[in-house]
Amino acid sequence: MEVIKPYKRGCGYSYALGAFPTFELLRKRPECAIGVFVHSTFPEREKVEALCEEHGIPVWNNDKAIARLSDKENVFVIGVFRTFTDRLNPEVPHLMLVNPSNMGNMGTILRSCLAFGIHDVAVIAPGVDWMNPKVVRASMGAVFSLRIALYDSFEEYVSFASGKGREYFPFMLNGGAEVSPAECFKPDLYTLIFGNEATGLPAEYAEVGTVIKIPQSEEVDSLNLTIAVGIGLFCFRKQ
Amino acid sequence: MEVIKPYKRGCGYSYALGAFPTFELLRKRPECAIGVFVHSTFPEREKVEALCEEHGIPVWNNDKAIARLSDKENVFVIGVFRTFTDRLNPEVPHLMLVNPSNMGNMGTILRSCLAFGIHDVAVIAPGVDWMNPKVVRASMGAVFSLRIALYDSFEEYVSFASGKGREYFPFMLNGGAEVSPAECFKPDLYTLIFGNEATGLPAEYAEVGTVIKIPQSEEVDSLNLTIAVGIGLFCFRKQ
Repeated sequence: MEVIKPYKRGCGYSYALGAFPTFELLRKRPECAIGVFVHSTFPEREKVEALCEEHGIPVWNNDKAIARLSDKENVFVIGVFRTFTDRLNPEVPHLMLVNPSNMGNMGTILRSCLAFGIHDVAVIAPGVDWMNPKVVRASMGAVFSLRIALYDSFEEYVSFASGKGREYFPFMLNGGAEVSPAECFKPDLYTLIFGNEATGLPAEYAEVGTVIKIPQSEEVDSLNLTIAVGIGLFCFRKQ
Repeated sequence: MEVIKPYKRGCGYSYALGAFPTFELLRKRPECAIGVFVHSTFPEREKVEALCEEHGIPVWNNDKAIARLSDKENVFVIGVFRTFTDRLNPEVPHLMLVNPSNMGNMGTILRSCLAFGIHDVAVIAPGVDWMNPKVVRASMGAVFSLRIALYDSFEEYVSFASGKGREYFPFMLNGGAEVSPAECFKPDLYTLIFGNEATGLPAEYAEVGTVIKIPQSEEVDSLNLTIAVGIGLFCFRKQ
C-alpha cells in the first residue's frame, strides 16, 4: 500500500521528508516505518534499500508521489511511518513545553534536546502536533529518538512524574527569585519548563519551582523560544 | 510617495512588517523611515502617529497596500524605510557569519545579538540579504539597533578589524584544540565566527584563532545554527 494522501493530524501516518530524517526513521523507529519513496535520481538508493530490506520495509519508486508530498523541491526520499505515542521515563530529566505553537520551533527544540542528552519531552495541551511532517523535518528526525507525551495540565503531568525528588525550573522573564543558568545547581532529576512563543509561561508557574531567568539586555523584549530552550538545555546538561 | 512595490534586493527601500518591528524602526532608525502604513483596524494608531509626527514621517491609510505587502494575515502596520549600510565599530566585540543562507535564521541570530549585547555583525559574502523584510521581521526589528557590514573575504574583514589585540573564535565541530564555552576565557575584544547552516566553516578557519566546540551528544550531526550562535553569545557575554 502506497500512502500518498497529505498528512492530517490524527490520520494515523505521517511523512519524513528528506534523506536525513528518513534514515533516522529507519535506524531509530524501523517498527513504525510503512515504506519509503525513493526518487529515480537519488544517489544513495542502495543505502536506503539495504536498511529497508533488513527490516522488511517496502521501497517504492514513485517520483510523482514524492513531488506531491514534498513542499520543498530538494526532497528525494520520503519515509512513510505510523504515528506513535510514548510514555515518558519518569526517572530521567524532562523538558516541558507549555502550549508550544510553532512547528518549526518545535522541531528545532527537539533537535536541541537530543544534542544535549534530554530524551523525554512533556507537552502541556494545547500544543503543536509533533507528528506533522514539518516538525519531523525541522527536527532532522530527532523526533524518532525521543519520547514525547501530551498532558492536559501541569497537574496531570506532576501526578505522573513526581515523587522521586524531581525539581522544577520554570524559565520566566519575571517572577520569583531570579537565577542565572550559569550559577544554578544541577540536580539529578529535573524538569525545565518553557512557555508559549508569544505569551511565555502563565504567572502561576512561578510557584511550581525555582524560577530561572536567562540574563539578557533590555534592548529586546525576550529571546526567541528556541534560543532560550537551547541555552537552558546547555546549562543543565551533565558535564 | 507611497511605496507599494514588492521588495527586491538593491531596490533602495524595504519594509518592517508588523507593529513591533515598525516601532523599532521609528525608535532606532527614524532617519531611515519613509512612511508608515496603518490599517484602519489597528488599535495603537495614536502611538504610531505620535512617533511619526515627532520625526516628520508620513502616516498612510491604505488597507489594500498592507494586504499586498504582507505575507501574513496578522500584519496591521508596515514601516517603509530606506535600506542602510553601516561600518562596524572596530573597538567592540563582533559576531561574524560566514555565508549565512537562511533569512529566518539571520533574523533570529540578530535578535540574539541584541539580547546578549553584541551590536556589530560581520557577514562574509555571499550571505543572505539582511534588509529583506523576512529578516527584518524574524529579527523583531533588532536589525535597526545593529551595525551590519558585508565583507568579500575574511582577510578583508581582518584588515579592518584587527590591530588592537582582537581574538578570533571559530566555532567548529572538528578542528584544532577543542574548548568548551563554559570554561573558555572571555577577552575584551573578540570575534565569534560561525559558518553556513549546511556546510559549517571551511577548514582553514581552524587556523585563524582558538577553535570552540560546543559540547553535544553524538546523536545529532550538529546543532541548528541559531542555537549554536545563541549559546556562543550567551557564554561570551560580559557578566
